[in-house]
Amino acid sequence: MINVTIWNEFLHEKQHEEVTRVYPDGIHNALKQGLANEQFNIRTATLDEPEHGLTEEVLNNTDVLIWWGHMGHDQVEDEIVERVHARVMAGMGLIVLHSAHFSKIFKKLMGTGCDLKWREANEKERIWVVNPAHQIAEGLPEYITLDHEEMYGEHFDIPAPDELIFVSWFPGGEVFRSGCTFTRGQGKIFYFRPGHETFPTYYNEHILKVISNSIFWAKPTKTATPVRGNHQPLEQL
Amino acid sequence: MINVTIWNEFLHEKQHEEVTRVYPDGIHNALKQGLANEQFNIRTATLDEPEHGLTEEVLNNTDVLIWWGHMGHDQVEDEIVERVHARVMAGMGLIVLHSAHFSKIFKKLMGTGCDLKWREANEKERIWVVNPAHQIAEGLPEYITLDHEEMYGEHFDIPAPDELIFVSWFPGGEVFRSGCTFTRGQGKIFYFRPGHETFPTYYNEHILKVISNSIFWAKPTKTATPVRGNHQPLEQL
Amino acid sequence: MINVTIWNEFLHEKQHEEVTRVYPDGIHNALKQGLANEQFNIRTATLDEPEHGLTEEVLNNTDVLIWWGHMGHDQVEDEIVERVHARVMAGMGLIVLHSAHFSKIFKKLMGTGCDLKWREANEKERIWVVNPAHQIAEGLPEYITLDHEEMYGEHFDIPAPDELIFVSWFPGGEVFRSGCTFTRGQGKIFYFRPGHETFPTYYNEHILKVISNSIFWAKPTKTATPVRGNHQPLEQL
Amino acid sequence: MINVTIWNEFLHEKQHEEVTRVYPDGIHNALKQGLANEQFNIRTATLDEPEHGLTEEVLNNTDVLIWWGHMGHDQVEDEIVERVHARVMAGMGLIVLHSAHFSKIFKKLMGTGCDLKWREANEKERIWVVNPAHQIAEGLPEYITLDHEEMYGEHFDIPAPDELIFVSWFPGGEVFRSGCTFTRGQGKIFYFRPGHETFPTYYNEHILKVISNSIFWAKPTKTATPVRGNHQPLEQL
Repeated sequence: MINVTIWNEFLHEKQHEEVTRVYPDGIHNALKQGLANEQFNIRTATLDEPEHGLTEEVLNNTDVLIWWGHMGHDQVEDEIVERVHARVMAGMGLIVLHSAHFSKIFKKLMGTGCDLKWREANEKERIWVVNPAHQIAEGLPEYITLDHEEMYGEHFDIPAPDELIFVSWFPGGEVFRSGCTFTRGQGKIFYFRPGHETFPTYYNEHILKVISNSIFWAKPTKTATPVRGNHQPLEQL
Repeated sequence: MINVTIWNEFLHEKQHEEVTRVYPDGIHNALKQGLANEQFNIRTATLDEPEHGLTEEVLNNTDVLIWWGHMGHDQVEDEIVERVHARVMAGMGLIVLHSAHFSKIFKKLMGTGCDLKWREANEKERIWVVNPAHQIAEGLPEYITLDHEEMYGEHFDIPAPDELIFVSWFPGGEVFRSGCTFTRGQGKIFYFRPGHETFPTYYNEHILKVISNSIFWAKPTKTATPVRGNHQPLEQL
Repeated sequence: MINVTIWNEFLHEKQHEEVTRVYPDGIHNALKQGLANEQFNIRTATLDEPEHGLTEEVLNNTDVLIWWGHMGHDQVEDEIVERVHARVMAGMGLIVLHSAHFSKIFKKLMGTGCDLKWREANEKERIWVVNPAHQIAEGLPEYITLDHEEMYGEHFDIPAPDELIFVSWFPGGEVFRSGCTFTRGQGKIFYFRPGHETFPTYYNEHILKVISNSIFWAKPTKTATPVRGNHQPLEQL
Repeated sequence: MINVTIWNEFLHEKQHEEVTRVYPDGIHNALKQGLANEQFNIRTATLDEPEHGLTEEVLNNTDVLIWWGHMGHDQVEDEIVERVHARVMAGMGLIVLHSAHFSKIFKKLMGTGCDLKWREANEKERIWVVNPAHQIAEGLPEYITLDHEEMYGEHFDIPAPDELIFVSWFPGGEVFRSGCTFTRGQGKIFYFRPGHETFPTYYNEHILKVISNSIFWAKPTKTATPVRGNHQPLEQL
């Protein structure tokens, strides 16, 4: 059983009618339902809850954290960001969705600006699998088509990903590295591009399959925690 | 259930008494016993069998192939090497052990000479985990100690691995990238250094744990086989 | 001074009128002229010359070899392929252009099938820089536009490149990893996608800039040749 | 001409007699003298200078910044760290030496804890070249021997480096990834392990050669600065 916590700022859905229509219970609950699986134990957390719903207890019992944020990035307390960061260092998986490229936690983990080109024009997106051997591509066709998405374009200001799994095509002439893995500390991180709040992307079976695959991929590896600091020789010097 | 085929040239064990003492039924059977697991369906194959035991039928029913070879590299038929290569391209996992760094199949997959420094001096090896987040490091201590091994030293003439998981230390002053992953076609490849035929390395619980982990990691990803060749546009030009 | 050898099969230019019109003296001579630079000492070689123009002497005096081939891949002698391979292992740089993705030397170095999707439809290509820090991107705009090119689409069956520098967009809905670096032995390899024989791609100033940059990047590193084989301990055991 | 700024906290040399004996004018001046080269225009900067010697003007005129720090990490003003970070994002090279693994700027760029094992025991270090094709290994033997160094051991808590060039061996049984490259924004970063303040490491010709090579490697790439934010389509939708 993998303990999954889906965090969503849950602001657009309460403020913008066109978003409410698509995700009446919030993106987090749409994902919770879409990802339901007997191997996942899923809970949700949102910005407005005490400690944004990410208490020490919740995080200590989270194997994989999914993060969706956009207009509320700045409202996330630095203390909570540090707490999430510490848990990633200790092995918790982190799945960063769409506009969370600009979240405090992602920028802190990447060490770069994480900016990109964007356009809200209700365009088609084709997401090509460029690493068909990867566990996160399990069960997918050669490409996923989303008829309605926001465009994100290069240059995406991230470190070179450890693994590049997806590249997106947009009709306006742009491309984007839309599925990227990173390791930080003992934690595994997956950035996945699609999911603008005004489109029903998180009901798409292929998109849900990718996120589901990434949960299995990102779950903690139970290895000895590295000892650091002053170290006695293992061999007779 | 993962279908595992353990291939061993099975020559040293029949010709050299000191090897027979360590692996009376061959390295392949020691591994078969050590890796036994209700999630693995394991068979073995050896050089002297017809088609080296790697018929089309066997390979088509193999998810992960383990390969140990040394003095018999040249006796492996090119046709069988091509067959194994084709299966890796199609998604079969391949785990390359110790002296199989010089096997035809590994050299073909790497595109390089795959040579290294070596010394048979019954030395200690310390295998350090340098990527504790990786699935292949699951359940390990910070390092594995083998009291008796052959030394392999850098420069190891391989492409830069996709992921470096282990680095070995030897008392003679050498280091070695001893756990490396690669992707080729739709197949995942793991090279793992230890396992000289005169030492009981493949009875070591940590070594068995690494190989077992790597089987789970290397199992095929069931994704759409990429279509290649002349391609009609997906969009109206 | 960097010794550059431009190898071209030089068949299309002599057989197909539409190619002759674009490259009357052959792609190799167009490149030789376009890359002329006081830091390069450039010669050319072609398929029809004895030993395809790639004698031991020529290769031993080549720092960087550029390779363009297409319809004549199978006519390249295996012995010459082995010779080029040995020189790459020893440090010679190799720049593989366009349809040379299917050359014997590239497939041997990659260890994979190197196939892809393609379409000869005289389409626009946009080549995006996804690694603006890389030396090979020096002096470029954010993207290069080629109004007339052949399409190549993913999945491109290569190992994960060490560095991904360019990603191409095509109007038919495809993307392609069009600028990739690899290291094999002591040699550096750069694959660069554009350059269909019927289009004037190799007169484009940005394309020439990329190739020129890649020559500086791929030139040999003069480091100690690794010693391999039986090795005495450096430390007292 | 490459504009190089060598930053040193310059504390140990003024406070600890054993360090003063080795570097009477400070590590920065030893490096300045050792790296002197007609292609480098070198200046130095230290913690005690106004703005730590890293004014906007100095940084704007720095192509490559070398950083040595240890006991004074916390005394570096956050504002200066942000300024250096912004310059790396804009393309300035950064060479991080030895104990600067724990500097604010390196931790910010890596996004991880950057901790490691260490031991001050005046031990031998062997630094093996594991990527002999890399420009930073130019002119080196197969390994560099330092008779007197501090030990650093794995696990080194950094992201997987883009390129691994050196691995160190220590007699106490430890290994360390001692030469690592990273790209962040448009800037190139090289971490190089050796250089404890009580040992004459920065007078060693091979160590100086590595640092000199890394300056050539890390110098800015003059490419178009990526445009980000709202973006009009390049193609007619």
